Amino acid sequence: MMSQAQKIFLAEEAGFCFGVKRAIKLAFEAVSKYKENVYTIGPIIHNPQVVDELEAKGVKVVADLSAVDCGTVIVRSHGIPPELFEIAKKKGLNIVDATCPFVKKAHNYALLLKKEDYQIIIVGDREHPEVRTISSYAGDNTFIIGNKNEIRTLEISTKVGILAQTTQSLENFQEILLELLKKTNELRIFNTICDATIKRQAEARNLAKKVDLMIVIGGYHSANTKRLKEICKETGADTYHIEIAKEIDPEWFVGKQKIGITAGASTPNWVVDKVVKRIRELQ
Amino acid sequence: MMSQAQKIFLAEEAGFCFGVKRAIKLAFEAVSKYKENVYTIGPIIHNPQVVDELEAKGVKVVADLSAVDCGTVIVRSHGIPPELFEIAKKKGLNIVDATCPFVKKAHNYALLLKKEDYQIIIVGDREHPEVRTISSYAGDNTFIIGNKNEIRTLEISTKVGILAQTTQSLENFQEILLELLKKTNELRIFNTICDATIKRQAEARNLAKKVDLMIVIGGYHSANTKRLKEICKETGADTYHIEIAKEIDPEWFVGKQKIGITAGASTPNWVVDKVVKRIRELQ
Repeated sequence: MMSQAQKIFLAEEAGFCFGVKRAIKLAFEAVSKYKENVYTIGPIIHNPQVVDELEAKGVKVVADLSAVDCGTVIVRSHGIPPELFEIAKKKGLNIVDATCPFVKKAHNYALLLKKEDYQIIIVGDREHPEVRTISSYAGDNTFIIGNKNEIRTLEISTKVGILAQTTQSLENFQEILLELLKKTNELRIFNTICDATIKRQAEARNLAKKVDLMIVIGGYHSANTKRLKEICKETGADTYHIEIAKEIDPEWFVGKQKIGITAGASTPNWVVDKVVKRIRELQ
Repeated sequence: MMSQAQKIFLAEEAGFCFGVKRAIKLAFEAVSKYKENVYTIGPIIHNPQVVDELEAKGVKVVADLSAVDCGTVIVRSHGIPPELFEIAKKKGLNIVDATCPFVKKAHNYALLLKKEDYQIIIVGDREHPEVRTISSYAGDNTFIIGNKNEIRTLEISTKVGILAQTTQSLENFQEILLELLKKTNELRIFNTICDATIKRQAEARNLAKKVDLMIVIGGYHSANTKRLKEICKETGADTYHIEIAKEIDPEWFVGKQKIGITAGASTPNWVVDKVVKRIRELQ
C-alpha cells in the first residue's frame, strides 16, 4: 500500500508525437477506405497495442512485398528504402506514405550529402528500421554509430556529413560531432533530431530529478522509449520501463511519495491512462 | 635572486609557425630582389621586432595603397580584402602574396559559403586583420562573434556556415557551434583553426599546470599570443605576457622553482633565446 501523500506527475510531452498521430490516422483511413488487402511493411509504429488494433480492422503486417501482389501498402512511420518503393510501384500497388515528415527530411539530406560526395555518419541505433532506412538513402560511404567511442576505429574523410535518428539524445549527438570535428576538415551537420524528442527528453530529465520513482511507458522495441528510460536512469532515479498497466508491480511503490510518468512517442493515450488509473488504485 | 633548484621548461611548439616563417622569408626575398619601393599593407606579422628588421632593409609599412603608385606590395600573413587586391592590380603593382595558406583556405571557404547562400559566422576577434579580411570575402550576411554569449542577440538562419580565426581556441569554437546547433537546421563547419595553434595551445595548457610561473612571449597585438596567456591563466598559473627580455621583472621569480616559457606564432627564436638567457642570468 502506498502512503496517502503519494502524488503522480504526468509529463506533458508524454505519448504520441505528430508523426505517429499522422501515421495512425493514415492507416485507419486506408483500411476503412480500401477494406481488403491493406498491408504495412513491418509494424506501422513501435507499439504492439496499436498494431493489434489495426490488425483487428484488417491491416496485415508483412516483412516484405514478396507475397503482396495487389492492394494497398502503407509505408510505416520509420520509412522504407527506395528499392521497396520501386518494387511497390512496379507491382502497381496503391501506396499510402505514412513516413514521418521529419524522417523524410533525413532521407532527403542523406541523398543531398551522397550527391555531394560526403562521407555520411548517422548517429543512431544500427538495428532500428528508421536508421536502416536513412542509411539506404545515404549509400555505401556511410557509417552508423551509437556513441563517440565508435569513432576511434573509423577512417574519417576530410568531408563528413552527419545526420541523427530523429529520436536520438541531443547530448550524444553533440558529443559525437565534437569528436568528429577534431578529425575532419569539413563537418556538415543536419540536426534531424525532432523537436518533440528534444522537449520530451528534457521534460523527462527534469521530472526524474524531482520524483522518487519514474515509470516510462512504451513498446520494448521503441528506441525513443528506451532512450527516455536511459535519461531517467542517468539522473539516479528509480526507473521502470513498462508496455502496459498490468506489468506494474505494487512493490515498486513502497515508501515512494512522488511518482513521475512519461511515455514514448508511439504510446497511445489510453495506455498511459490505464497506467495512471492502476497506480491510483494501489493507493 | 632565484634558488639554485630553479628550472626552465621551454615549450617545443613555441615561436614561428609555418605561415609566419613563409611570410618573413617572402618579405626578405622581395626586399633583397626589388630593393626599392617595397611595401606591406599593415605589419607583415604581429611582431614589432621583425617589422623593425624589415623596415631597416627598406620595407615600408603603409595603411592602404592610396600613396603607393609603383613598386612591390607584399600581402601580409593575415591577408587583405579582395578590393585591395583589385586596387593593386589596377595600379600595376608587383604583388607578393604572403597570406598564410591556412588563412587563404578560410577565404576560399567564405567564398563558397557565400555562393551557396549560407549565413556565415566567423569565430574570432572582431578587430583582428585576419578576421576582418575573412569577413570581407564572406560578404554581407556575416557575423563575427567572440564567444557563445554573443549568439543570443543574433537572428540565426536555417542554414549556417561557420569558420574560425586560425588562432582561435578549439574549446571556444566548440562551445559556439554547440549553441548554434540548437538554433539552426543545417550547420556547415569548416574547422579553420590551424594545427600549429591546436598543438601550441595544448602544450601551453599542460606546461602551465606543472610550473610555478609561465612567461608568454609575443607581440601585444598578437591574437594568438594573447590567447596563450589566457589559456595559461585559466589553469591558475601565475602568467606574464612580455614582448622582449628587458620587460622581465626579477621580482616575478622570487620563490618560484619551475618556470614555463611559451611564445606566439609570430615570435622570432632570437627573442625567445634572449628571454631564456635573461632568466638564467637572474639565478
